[in-house]
Amino acid sequence: MGEALQGLKRTKMCGELREEHIGQIITVMGWVQRKRNLGGLEFVDLRDRTGILQVVFGDEINSEAFQKADTIRSEYCIAVTGEIVRRESPNSNMSTGMVELKANTLKIFSESETPPIYIKENLDAAENIRLKYRYLDLRRPDMQKIYMIRHKAAKAIRDYLDKNGFLEVETPMLTKSTPEGARDYIVPSRNYPGMFYALPQSPQLLKQLLMVSGFDRYFQIVKCFRDEDLRANRQPEFTQVDLEMSFVEADDVIALNEGLIAHVFKEVLGVEVKLPIKRMPFKEAMEKYGSDKPDLRFGMEITDLTEVVKTSDFKVFADAIGNSGSVRALCLKGGASLGRKDIDRLGEFVKTFKAKGLAWIQLKEGEVKSPIAKFLKEEELQGIINTMNAETGDLILIVADKNSVVFQSLGQLRLDLAKKFELIKDKNEFNFTWITEFPLLEYDEEEGRYFAAHHPFTMPMDEDIQYLDSDPGRVRAKAYDLVLNGEELGGGSIRIHDTKLQEKMLEVLGFTQESAWESFGFLLEAFKFGPPPHGGLAFGLDRMIMFLAGTDNIKDVIAFPKNQNAFCYLTQAPNVVDEKQLDDLRIGVIKKED
Amino acid sequence: MGEALQGLKRTKMCGELREEHIGQIITVMGWVQRKRNLGGLEFVDLRDRTGILQVVFGDEINSEAFQKADTIRSEYCIAVTGEIVRRESPNSNMSTGMVELKANTLKIFSESETPPIYIKENLDAAENIRLKYRYLDLRRPDMQKIYMIRHKAAKAIRDYLDKNGFLEVETPMLTKSTPEGARDYIVPSRNYPGMFYALPQSPQLLKQLLMVSGFDRYFQIVKCFRDEDLRANRQPEFTQVDLEMSFVEADDVIALNEGLIAHVFKEVLGVEVKLPIKRMPFKEAMEKYGSDKPDLRFGMEITDLTEVVKTSDFKVFADAIGNSGSVRALCLKGGASLGRKDIDRLGEFVKTFKAKGLAWIQLKEGEVKSPIAKFLKEEELQGIINTMNAETGDLILIVADKNSVVFQSLGQLRLDLAKKFELIKDKNEFNFTWITEFPLLEYDEEEGRYFAAHHPFTMPMDEDIQYLDSDPGRVRAKAYDLVLNGEELGGGSIRIHDTKLQEKMLEVLGFTQESAWESFGFLLEAFKFGPPPHGGLAFGLDRMIMFLAGTDNIKDVIAFPKNQNAFCYLTQAPNVVDEKQLDDLRIGVIKKED
Repeated sequence: MGEALQGLKRTKMCGELREEHIGQIITVMGWVQRKRNLGGLEFVDLRDRTGILQVVFGDEINSEAFQKADTIRSEYCIAVTGEIVRRESPNSNMSTGMVELKANTLKIFSESETPPIYIKENLDAAENIRLKYRYLDLRRPDMQKIYMIRHKAAKAIRDYLDKNGFLEVETPMLTKSTPEGARDYIVPSRNYPGMFYALPQSPQLLKQLLMVSGFDRYFQIVKCFRDEDLRANRQPEFTQVDLEMSFVEADDVIALNEGLIAHVFKEVLGVEVKLPIKRMPFKEAMEKYGSDKPDLRFGMEITDLTEVVKTSDFKVFADAIGNSGSVRALCLKGGASLGRKDIDRLGEFVKTFKAKGLAWIQLKEGEVKSPIAKFLKEEELQGIINTMNAETGDLILIVADKNSVVFQSLGQLRLDLAKKFELIKDKNEFNFTWITEFPLLEYDEEEGRYFAAHHPFTMPMDEDIQYLDSDPGRVRAKAYDLVLNGEELGGGSIRIHDTKLQEKMLEVLGFTQESAWESFGFLLEAFKFGPPPHGGLAFGLDRMIMFLAGTDNIKDVIAFPKNQNAFCYLTQAPNVVDEKQLDDLRIGVIKKED
Repeated sequence: MGEALQGLKRTKMCGELREEHIGQIITVMGWVQRKRNLGGLEFVDLRDRTGILQVVFGDEINSEAFQKADTIRSEYCIAVTGEIVRRESPNSNMSTGMVELKANTLKIFSESETPPIYIKENLDAAENIRLKYRYLDLRRPDMQKIYMIRHKAAKAIRDYLDKNGFLEVETPMLTKSTPEGARDYIVPSRNYPGMFYALPQSPQLLKQLLMVSGFDRYFQIVKCFRDEDLRANRQPEFTQVDLEMSFVEADDVIALNEGLIAHVFKEVLGVEVKLPIKRMPFKEAMEKYGSDKPDLRFGMEITDLTEVVKTSDFKVFADAIGNSGSVRALCLKGGASLGRKDIDRLGEFVKTFKAKGLAWIQLKEGEVKSPIAKFLKEEELQGIINTMNAETGDLILIVADKNSVVFQSLGQLRLDLAKKFELIKDKNEFNFTWITEFPLLEYDEEEGRYFAAHHPFTMPMDEDIQYLDSDPGRVRAKAYDLVLNGEELGGGSIRIHDTKLQEKMLEVLGFTQESAWESFGFLLEAFKFGPPPHGGLAFGLDRMIMFLAGTDNIKDVIAFPKNQNAFCYLTQAPNVVDEKQLDDLRIGVIKKED
């Protein structure tokens, strides 16, 4: 065993020492970043959460400490007491670079084997090794910085909401499985064999009940769960900033949350978010950017060419328009210089989004080059160029298909081109937009029925309620998403607070009166007792931290994350459990037959 | 459907209106507490989270609003706009009692059926009804006050820990089942059929790993889970204030947490907790109060009579002492007036704690009455009376048995007597004590082995490490519990941070080298890489809120609690799930054979 503290107190953190401390006798505790022998002295870079301090051991400073220092190696955990002195050769790259610690005593708390990963910034190591030795990965200063940001952001969120009259109320983790969401994680009950709790996908219904209770303003920073196949940047458990307000309309919720976001970005990064944040209806976002979370840090909007080519004989265009699709295009400035191979690659790219092909027109100096020119009338070709505002040197990229394919393929192509041609000039820009007027329902061809685009508790827009029966796809919702640099930061809505309207909504989703009450009875019942108008929003905290910390890997912002198979390399979870545990729960594991 | 807001803004909360607002035109929104017709006017008590405001509707104030007010009933959710005026007959029982609102317009957001429970303070309704209609139960002002306290307490905790350099770090809910704890809730994995996650009983190991990572000071307010048969005031999921510090000894952890508790009680209740909080070793607590969580709001300490009666011929005493037990007693002041039946009831009470009987001596005026007097020598009887400092009018209650029975039965009897005879004078007293020097291990007769008294990661006291092999029961731990008014508020310890010592500890608990590494390998491995000395503590937040809110029912402080069978009356969780969900997880429910 190493040495014990035995009453020794740390008096300073490594990273805080400056010239003003010169002459002070201090004690610091931390880890050996590196050790060098130079001119008969031992130099140790000592690291704690706040930074690095140079410590000098010398025979003439303190002979005993000097000899003991000979035994220490990287990542030993130690304490050093001594005097802060001016450094002979200052290091301007270190915040403590003007001073060093002359070591009088050394305590070795514990030794370290050679770590399997380097304890340094910008580490390039295999992910499974980083995750297995997560405690060493988290020792790296750039990782620790992320958790300081995360702490600070959560604190700023709570401070702001507290100041604005919100109460943080905890809702249960062991709750009821509800339909219409993603797949639930379930937890077998011991008292009721054959019955299960579900881990919450969000506290949606319970926070609405808190509004019925008159809590007025609720929030919670809370774990939520989805047992889905994990795409990149998804985790089985994630953290939401969840809030709900009574006696509000969409504008009130939006204004409150703009203030929240501005407060967080100011507190954590010192960045001023200009308010109010601009808004864009869903329809415009789809038509201009092919996405309900448009990246507005660059232009290159999608342009509709349907009108220009509506009488064209070109079969590809005519077929798309005939099938109530459209013909739309992007104009890539300077794209006329692209070679055939590069353009073919773009064609392959849009095919991954089900587009049948990518037509193109290059405006080279004194020449228009296009494989489809021969199918178009001269005035059609000129009409396209004019509508696109294309100039010499540009490249027009056209997709003709049904609208969903046109939007998705051109929307994705737009993002792909922005990356390839570095269209985003300011890497530090935070471009916020609210997307509004979402469709309430989405039709699922496979299942042959409507699904709630947001969730089944979202209020339709007043003027569209009349279409709930006759034309459900046309109904817009009182819903709003906050989009930042092309990512959804959060979303919410005004909720239904009327039993009849809620029943009607569930009916459109295919519920019978009976199945609606079976699944959501406690909500429908609650609405009989004077529910207030209410609405709210939930932010994805993990994603927010990714923005604040400047990382695009969600695993960086979660202290103990899981891999894509929801496996934890560190603890080896999930794992087998005792037979007795399964017996207690009266469940058995079914071996796969095939 | 009721009326919509349509741009109407709430400008005031009901409870904030005072004489200074007279003459202002305001809008309030809330629920109808009650309505009375008096002298041709309609009086409505309107309630929101902040309190109640009297609203007056009159034909001469506004005829339209007056007629509309005729339709409203209790718990309708409404908005009223009008002028604040001085009340003709002020009501000093209401904080808003000097003013009332003259209603110009009325909006009815939603109607209410007659609620199944009264929306009032100090409700006496059946618990299952309260839990089924929890959203109405939570509408009661005394319940809402609890959640304001809970919010405020959590905020105060976070503010204090933030100011003291703690980072809040979230640890996973889907983690690994570990032995040596209570029964885990488990979650089947879809990706790895036959494997399970466990919901955490505490983030113990992960917070220790964060110390290995150099996070220095960690905390989290976090849900924890135990699948145990629920005693009163236990819930399957509960909330911990969990914290851990590096480079500290027990005194440092204690001092930090005293500051935390003082801050919380000051912020929430305005109560000054006198620091430092007194400390008492476990042994003293057991000997004086028969409990490791003594209630120190009253005296009546247990007194050891073993020495006085060690040569007694009285078989009951001699047997107890012979079997290395003891003879101990309480002295109830004024208890000489108790009748035989009352004393017999005390005898029955101690028998529920396995005591074979309760001997007693009544010091009546001029007479000593005792059924055991005849078995005692005169000097023994007098010795008992003298040792107990008993005076005329007192009652001495004696238990002779093995020590564990003596302590438990007299400790419980002491609490029972305090309740019966109202020995606790100041109901508002908060009497804090640290209990220290706990035994590290407890021997389980049934299992025939030692268990960790706190948990297997607790550091033994330096001077006792030598007995780990030879006399494990003698080893004391660097552990400390904070006790308030006879309840455990929190507990913690300095941890082992050495692979060898941790392995030794697990060996004492019956682990082989192999099974120790299988269960705790990632911790043992982590200790190879320069672990710092560290320790921490966890408070039960639910219990803390019970104290702050002055309730002795844990269900009052949890918004959506479960009953004793871990069942939620509101959502009907746990419940059946789709067969498909079980198929996906490849688990089956085993029907009970018997």
